[in-house]
Amino acid sequence: MSLSPPKYAADVAKVKSEIYEADGIKHESVDSKVTRVAEATRMDGSRDENAAGDFLASSHVASNVPASMLPLNPWITPMLTDFYQLTMVYAYWKGMRHNDHSVFELFFRKNPFQGEFTIFAGLSECIRFITNFRITENDVAFIKTRMPSETSQDFFDYLLGLDCSDVIVHSMAEGTVVFPRTPLMRIEGPLGICQLLESTLLNLTNFPSLIATNAARMRLAAGEDKILLEFGLRRAQGPDGAMSASRYAYMGGFDATSNVAAAQAFGIDVKGTHAHSFVSAFEGPEQLQDRSLGECKDFWAVAAEKRAQLKYPAANIGELAAFVAYAQAFPDDFNALVDTYDSLKSGIPNFLAVAVALHELGYHARGIRLDSGDLAYLSVKTREMFADAAKQFGIDLSYLQIVASNDINESVLASLDEQGHSIDIFGIGTNLVTCQAQPALGMVYKLVEINGKPAIKLSIEFKKVTIPGKKHVFRLIGMEGVALCDVMVADHEDPPVVGKRLLCRHPYIDRKRANVTPSYVIELLRPIFIGPERRVAPEPSLNEMRDHVRDQLTLIRNDHKRALNPTEYKVSVTNELFTFMHDLWLEKVNVAELE
Amino acid sequence: MSLSPPKYAADVAKVKSEIYEADGIKHESVDSKVTRVAEATRMDGSRDENAAGDFLASSHVASNVPASMLPLNPWITPMLTDFYQLTMVYAYWKGMRHNDHSVFELFFRKNPFQGEFTIFAGLSECIRFITNFRITENDVAFIKTRMPSETSQDFFDYLLGLDCSDVIVHSMAEGTVVFPRTPLMRIEGPLGICQLLESTLLNLTNFPSLIATNAARMRLAAGEDKILLEFGLRRAQGPDGAMSASRYAYMGGFDATSNVAAAQAFGIDVKGTHAHSFVSAFEGPEQLQDRSLGECKDFWAVAAEKRAQLKYPAANIGELAAFVAYAQAFPDDFNALVDTYDSLKSGIPNFLAVAVALHELGYHARGIRLDSGDLAYLSVKTREMFADAAKQFGIDLSYLQIVASNDINESVLASLDEQGHSIDIFGIGTNLVTCQAQPALGMVYKLVEINGKPAIKLSIEFKKVTIPGKKHVFRLIGMEGVALCDVMVADHEDPPVVGKRLLCRHPYIDRKRANVTPSYVIELLRPIFIGPERRVAPEPSLNEMRDHVRDQLTLIRNDHKRALNPTEYKVSVTNELFTFMHDLWLEKVNVAELE
Repeated sequence: MSLSPPKYAADVAKVKSEIYEADGIKHESVDSKVTRVAEATRMDGSRDENAAGDFLASSHVASNVPASMLPLNPWITPMLTDFYQLTMVYAYWKGMRHNDHSVFELFFRKNPFQGEFTIFAGLSECIRFITNFRITENDVAFIKTRMPSETSQDFFDYLLGLDCSDVIVHSMAEGTVVFPRTPLMRIEGPLGICQLLESTLLNLTNFPSLIATNAARMRLAAGEDKILLEFGLRRAQGPDGAMSASRYAYMGGFDATSNVAAAQAFGIDVKGTHAHSFVSAFEGPEQLQDRSLGECKDFWAVAAEKRAQLKYPAANIGELAAFVAYAQAFPDDFNALVDTYDSLKSGIPNFLAVAVALHELGYHARGIRLDSGDLAYLSVKTREMFADAAKQFGIDLSYLQIVASNDINESVLASLDEQGHSIDIFGIGTNLVTCQAQPALGMVYKLVEINGKPAIKLSIEFKKVTIPGKKHVFRLIGMEGVALCDVMVADHEDPPVVGKRLLCRHPYIDRKRANVTPSYVIELLRPIFIGPERRVAPEPSLNEMRDHVRDQLTLIRNDHKRALNPTEYKVSVTNELFTFMHDLWLEKVNVAELE
Repeated sequence: MSLSPPKYAADVAKVKSEIYEADGIKHESVDSKVTRVAEATRMDGSRDENAAGDFLASSHVASNVPASMLPLNPWITPMLTDFYQLTMVYAYWKGMRHNDHSVFELFFRKNPFQGEFTIFAGLSECIRFITNFRITENDVAFIKTRMPSETSQDFFDYLLGLDCSDVIVHSMAEGTVVFPRTPLMRIEGPLGICQLLESTLLNLTNFPSLIATNAARMRLAAGEDKILLEFGLRRAQGPDGAMSASRYAYMGGFDATSNVAAAQAFGIDVKGTHAHSFVSAFEGPEQLQDRSLGECKDFWAVAAEKRAQLKYPAANIGELAAFVAYAQAFPDDFNALVDTYDSLKSGIPNFLAVAVALHELGYHARGIRLDSGDLAYLSVKTREMFADAAKQFGIDLSYLQIVASNDINESVLASLDEQGHSIDIFGIGTNLVTCQAQPALGMVYKLVEINGKPAIKLSIEFKKVTIPGKKHVFRLIGMEGVALCDVMVADHEDPPVVGKRLLCRHPYIDRKRANVTPSYVIELLRPIFIGPERRVAPEPSLNEMRDHVRDQLTLIRNDHKRALNPTEYKVSVTNELFTFMHDLWLEKVNVAELE
């Protein structure tokens, strides 16, 4: 038995038409949630025959590229690669194998954060990189200095002429909920160029997927009704560690960022209050040169009077002056950081004095930010103090919000939820943007087929053996509208069909198998870059990708998504693929000789 | 008692001349190691009166900047900031305080990796950022959309006119071994502009310092005689997560990187072998279209013959073909990844067959790379197999090297060292570049003085209280040529003098104090950017900074540097500073009222 050879663009049409049959059945059998998700999956290419024409927008590969298709960072060039890619390509070229037809898959083996799901992100950057792939004279001049002196000029000419016009990429949509071992991207084409893409594609998907997953997990832990702010710029791993974090945290479910450049570049909402230094910069009202606010000639006096009425003798006068100064600048967006001296004895009373004064003048303060101490206790206490002040002054202060922002991570969110708290908004920095709980994802890029013959990467650890051959991935949805399992199908096999029972097998453990009858079938790997036809799928907007994450997550059962001891999601192969892989393994690995 | 007001550039000259007096004494009392370090400290500015003229190279700030002074990443602009910096500056501007004279310090509170030292890095990027600081019309157009609608155009005009021409920066040299709480950078100037620098300076120093420290720790764990390669591109946190990692790992003591772009941009040596996919791409000699190597018509036959003589029947024939193909391309740089099938039964025998064949033809293979399994055992076993083959063929193979590269971190290095191994070269990726053991450093930026008055940031945790006022930092070196302690000295105090006893006190604990008589005094904070004079210190080369790290580390006692339970290095303040800080604290914090 052998898997079929690649069929290039022809098979795109075949799989698409097969999927459309499945679609036909779906409309009679699935509920509205699935329909909504099906709509959302359009972003990775239309699932509609009428739209097939514009599914792949016309675009020149690596020439006349509009600015909107350039990578976000100028370091993203073919030189952002491991040197061994160049040495391997030289060895392939020298052995006349650089044009062998190859199929690579990009996947990971283990979900991050001890969880059972991952959000796939970074695809847009990958496609921009692929579209613009070109090695320059300058690059070659550098490469020459690092290659054996006898290296032929013909090899450098080959590098100079390389682009991705012979490469075909299939991919899951950016923002898809994904699982271990299934190909997230499949890259086909000449061995030389496909090999050269490896390191860059891994770099461009690993961290984005990790951040998006981290953000999605924090969103699940916080609940849909909380506002989540990304505050990580200062602790991020470099400038675009910060930019990527802002972008992919938003994709994963955050609402806004503090990072102005990210807000400007990506259209994300931007939020912020003030720092401790702002408070430290005031010693008292003598530093308020102008004490007015709008019609009010002496806003300081009004605030000071309110504070006297609130009766908190320990409240710091410099802090009150700082709050007054800040409220003068932002009377309708006054948010105070309250822990410079003592949150309960100074910061909140001072805030309330200013908030009540603003209220009387017809403004609305925004709220406070807690940045130290026991956030659950302090938030509950703060809410009580808000209520007491409202009562004392006979006004409604229910619009005041509480932001919390000190070393928050997924387990702090869960623990706060358990204890009970009054926080409306979480500002999360270090733990989000550096993914402290697990700062790297193990995305890999493996050769699965060469010249039509499946390739297998063996390993002493059987679970590290790659699943050989070019394949397709389908998500099988059950009667209740949730995902039952993902199944990998060999290229020449028929795709799963709605209403038809399919034996799905665990890729490594022969006892684990299930008959699955899907009510709906989603094809996950879709054509996205067709070099030979100079076509590339349109890039979804960041908001579309963010919506896709949210919609996708509703398809996944809660027990797969929970933080503690989640259930493993079933990732399976067809019986044929299982048998093929195991036979190939037995054939390639010698039986140990014990003497 | 109060600390003196800022004296700007004038005090540079004063402190410099005092230090030169100390220098005069030093030459009679310190050993050559200290002299060497003194030489190295020149990179942060000359310590030589004759060189005082060219200490600060003439350069226009923010105009006619040469490309070599531009930040390495285009995201490094004033917009790479937290939004609250802009809102605070608006509040300062509205309250007419934006031109108040301020002094900020950049420091951290806790060494990373449970260690007792840190390498300060990222300064060059900070200075490039400061030199080029300018808010554009485009930036202002964006900021306008996020500010209250009534914000005056005058404020935006103020932003458009901002640069660092009134800012003075003192800093420790990049690559200095530093300790908690001492200012690494001191930024003085108008409150508005100094506040706007915060987030960007933190982003530009946090990760570089973390990576450089991580690399320096790995260098200490591996020992000076090993070669350390940075292999982290694919797992790094984004493209310049990777670029920064390559740059600062090199600074911290690594020898080379796999990242071609980093090698090209920073002049770092680049290394690499091949991947598993290269081996998987070969099934046997039928894929070798040309079997020759130089004069040898059938190099495959020679290698196959050697393998038959080596008698390892389980060695995979596809792997041998892959090695032959790679050796044909790199006969004098042949490095084989040996674990695609089985390191001992297949990879190493196949490598040896090719290496012996190369040797007979007058070439020299480089060695092998182990990428899985028990690295200590496998490396020892590999060395034995090398020796056996050398004996069998009667040749010298002692030049063969062993590279190891699977999930290596600082504790693996220590554990390998304990077990005994035969590895020459370590390739380190994820753990190095993402700083898995602690992916973020807590650098902070605090206001310490405003309009000549010391500012203090209070905190319920006393150890988080900032040390108020503008100050200087000196490293006091003892008779044996190692650092005794760092001491912070108030701006108006005299600097420590060689041979003169100085009471050094722990900043927080009044019982902890010591009389220190230095044999040599190093001033750590040095002028680096003098905006009013349009002068900026020359940027050292990456290699100079790398040398500085190594030299600096020799000044620090081994017990401070060891991985397990290191001794805390003494960071102290003068008696005057101690008393001043504690008095200020008592004055600012109310006595609790218990009723």
